[in-house]
Amino acid sequence: MIKKTTMFDFTATYTDQYELTMGQAYFLAGRKDESAVFDYFYRKNPFNGGYTIFAGLPVLLAILENFRFDKEDLDFLKAQSFHPDYLAYLEGFRFRGAIYSPPEGDLVFPTRPVLRVEGNLIETQLVETVLLNILNFQSLVATKASRMRIAAGDAVLVDFGLRRAHGPGGYYASRAAVIGGFDATSNTLAARDYNLRASGTMAHSYVQSCDSEIEAFRSFAAARPDDCVFLVDTYSTLKSGMPNAITVAKEMEKKGYRLKGIRLDSGDLAYLARKSRAMLDEAGLHYVKIAASNQLDEYVIRSLMAQKAPIDVFGVGTSLVTGQPDAALDGVYKLSQANGHPVIKLSENVSKITLPDKKQVWRAIDDKGLFLGADVVGLEDERTIAVMHHPFLPRQSFAIGPYKIEPLLHMVMAQGKIVYNPPSLFQTARYSRERLDMLPAEYKRFENPHIYKVGLSSRLNALRDSLVAQHKW
Amino acid sequence: MIKKTTMFDFTATYTDQYELTMGQAYFLAGRKDESAVFDYFYRKNPFNGGYTIFAGLPVLLAILENFRFDKEDLDFLKAQSFHPDYLAYLEGFRFRGAIYSPPEGDLVFPTRPVLRVEGNLIETQLVETVLLNILNFQSLVATKASRMRIAAGDAVLVDFGLRRAHGPGGYYASRAAVIGGFDATSNTLAARDYNLRASGTMAHSYVQSCDSEIEAFRSFAAARPDDCVFLVDTYSTLKSGMPNAITVAKEMEKKGYRLKGIRLDSGDLAYLARKSRAMLDEAGLHYVKIAASNQLDEYVIRSLMAQKAPIDVFGVGTSLVTGQPDAALDGVYKLSQANGHPVIKLSENVSKITLPDKKQVWRAIDDKGLFLGADVVGLEDERTIAVMHHPFLPRQSFAIGPYKIEPLLHMVMAQGKIVYNPPSLFQTARYSRERLDMLPAEYKRFENPHIYKVGLSSRLNALRDSLVAQHKW
Repeated sequence: MIKKTTMFDFTATYTDQYELTMGQAYFLAGRKDESAVFDYFYRKNPFNGGYTIFAGLPVLLAILENFRFDKEDLDFLKAQSFHPDYLAYLEGFRFRGAIYSPPEGDLVFPTRPVLRVEGNLIETQLVETVLLNILNFQSLVATKASRMRIAAGDAVLVDFGLRRAHGPGGYYASRAAVIGGFDATSNTLAARDYNLRASGTMAHSYVQSCDSEIEAFRSFAAARPDDCVFLVDTYSTLKSGMPNAITVAKEMEKKGYRLKGIRLDSGDLAYLARKSRAMLDEAGLHYVKIAASNQLDEYVIRSLMAQKAPIDVFGVGTSLVTGQPDAALDGVYKLSQANGHPVIKLSENVSKITLPDKKQVWRAIDDKGLFLGADVVGLEDERTIAVMHHPFLPRQSFAIGPYKIEPLLHMVMAQGKIVYNPPSLFQTARYSRERLDMLPAEYKRFENPHIYKVGLSSRLNALRDSLVAQHKW
Repeated sequence: MIKKTTMFDFTATYTDQYELTMGQAYFLAGRKDESAVFDYFYRKNPFNGGYTIFAGLPVLLAILENFRFDKEDLDFLKAQSFHPDYLAYLEGFRFRGAIYSPPEGDLVFPTRPVLRVEGNLIETQLVETVLLNILNFQSLVATKASRMRIAAGDAVLVDFGLRRAHGPGGYYASRAAVIGGFDATSNTLAARDYNLRASGTMAHSYVQSCDSEIEAFRSFAAARPDDCVFLVDTYSTLKSGMPNAITVAKEMEKKGYRLKGIRLDSGDLAYLARKSRAMLDEAGLHYVKIAASNQLDEYVIRSLMAQKAPIDVFGVGTSLVTGQPDAALDGVYKLSQANGHPVIKLSENVSKITLPDKKQVWRAIDDKGLFLGADVVGLEDERTIAVMHHPFLPRQSFAIGPYKIEPLLHMVMAQGKIVYNPPSLFQTARYSRERLDMLPAEYKRFENPHIYKVGLSSRLNALRDSLVAQHKW
């Protein structure tokens, strides 16, 4: 079951004001029971990458199950001159719509629907902002984390980001990082609520507060002998920190304990790791691990791995939890069907014309069980897809018939209730890893990755073209 | 008084795990009543800018007044094998320290202490993470907002960012944007809790959901005739949206209403604004404002202003609330005094050596009442500052004596209680604007701004040098 977090209370004014003004206009026009279908999708993979990891689903669903206007909300809206009849409607408002989604952790690609929302016009509109707010951010961070996992191979990755996170957004960043492949977090609250491995050692202040560095290490070892990592760069890594760490590690051995690791937090990490490893090995401390932190990202980690720096654990903060440099996934939420009719939004930029109607997305799998590199968007009631069409270049098409295809959107919420059994975060992380393993390497490289194709079924293609033609001037 | 927000419950495990492990080591060593002084400071202005706006203070203080471990926290820590005596101590834990700070909204500069925390070793350590988490982010966004305010002149700035914000971080982004000079927000919850102007019009979905664009405008005007902005780019801005908006605006006039504005959300905003303005003016609709949105930042706004695009309102989302491209302020929290003794952290990078002891910061004001461009860091008990020294180049100094200097850090919390009367957010925004007006223009330009100097008093300089010498190898 999804645990309701204790930290947040997402009241229904956690939204953009225009959702409420549109809701009122629908309500006053007597349209509250008209149906609507919205698609959530995004236009560009973050980090110039070749894929995005979809994350945030169970958080969103738990919020939607409890999304309602409280008295303070209604008083505020009343003071803003919303109509009394509409306010009475909002007082009893609950989201009772349906949501179709891929499993959390799956790979998704630009322009195709990631997730579909169905319900009445008002409820589907009112949840737009919170849906985007929750999914955009966690998908951004899970994607960033997975890039670091790719760079780090089997090294341990620990999220150190809470101090640089965007306020309470850091709570969800730690969750998303695990989906993308992180092993542990410094964020105690996230560890508590999501059953993560909490990881924490010492700061420079600990060393500074003691009479000497060696006394700092001794007292720390005394307090936590079985989970002890020394930070060695407060004064001088090689001249002071490492010799002191080794001395105390040998003292610990005499008491039957093993120092778990040392942490490097400044300077040339490759050089210092190599020197530190040699000093440890020379002292017979082969079991002591080396952790490194300080402004890491996937490129620095890749460089350290390429240099064969003997680093066992990477602590990553800012770039992970803020998704630098993009800092946002550009997800949008667009109406595709209103009152049973397919609708479209035009644009002078042809690639920004939306896809009409209720849709399903199919993924092609090759004969080795790998992703072929093509998702096909079709109408929801299509059962076979023979051909996929280029989304806006006419006459470009590809025979998908020979390949296995699997539908990606599954019902996860019906009548406002969660209707699937959400896996644990670790199961989600494992699933995500399996899916990433199915994506050929050329889509995962950091520089100029292969572009995963998204095409349209023949029926959707024809429908879209006919709607565009209706709106021609 | 500071209102406790209803959305969040910042329990004391909203922290990095190492704060807790260090706290245990202090506790078990019998050091829980030793005193400590920490400085919050940062090393680099965001956005390659010349200043940072300090924001988040009252949010932080309200959290600290209520920072405690609940049962779920203690159970979690127990399961992690923390010591029973320490857990008993944490059960009664309250932050009872003191905080010295500039007023929220003041300008701050790299390397000098922004804020000082005093208390016992454990309490000052345990609040590190939440302090950094709250202040770094809001200062980042307030600074970004102020750059947009500089670019936008007197145009109206509206925060549209919640959908791209980092989850619930968006709540505080909207608050910080107002401090930096924004006029309104789309974020209804933030508007409710911070008494902001909520602004909301319509999305493309509204237009799409109606039988025709003109019917969409008519029904929207019927629902909200006195606060009505039409989004005109769903099908074609100039061929459809603007003609329909003008038709409905004239119909509204007959009923005694005035269309407030139209919004452009795609295409060449300068071109479309000019064309739209001409169409409106030709129809006698001089009073209808033009709002523009779509991937704006301070550079795009500056460009639109330079082109004299007739835009009255800018709606800014992603770049504002995520602080793109930096996405983080690199604030840190460093120990400067332990058990009454000044302490230091060394670094192979001389500019990263910390400043020891309990300190005050003084700002020099010139005879025109403008900032001279120099903050001097001195010891807390210094009453006169005659000379400021370069922070790490010896023999570089400057006579500050002839100028007026003002102390910047004032007590805002004592024994864990707020001891000042926090201004309203609007007062804070006005104060911030006054302080920004005192900063000469060369520090505010976007390209290669003048570097605001930070120096040390003679006594602090001598103390720092002597501590460095003690740790030499």
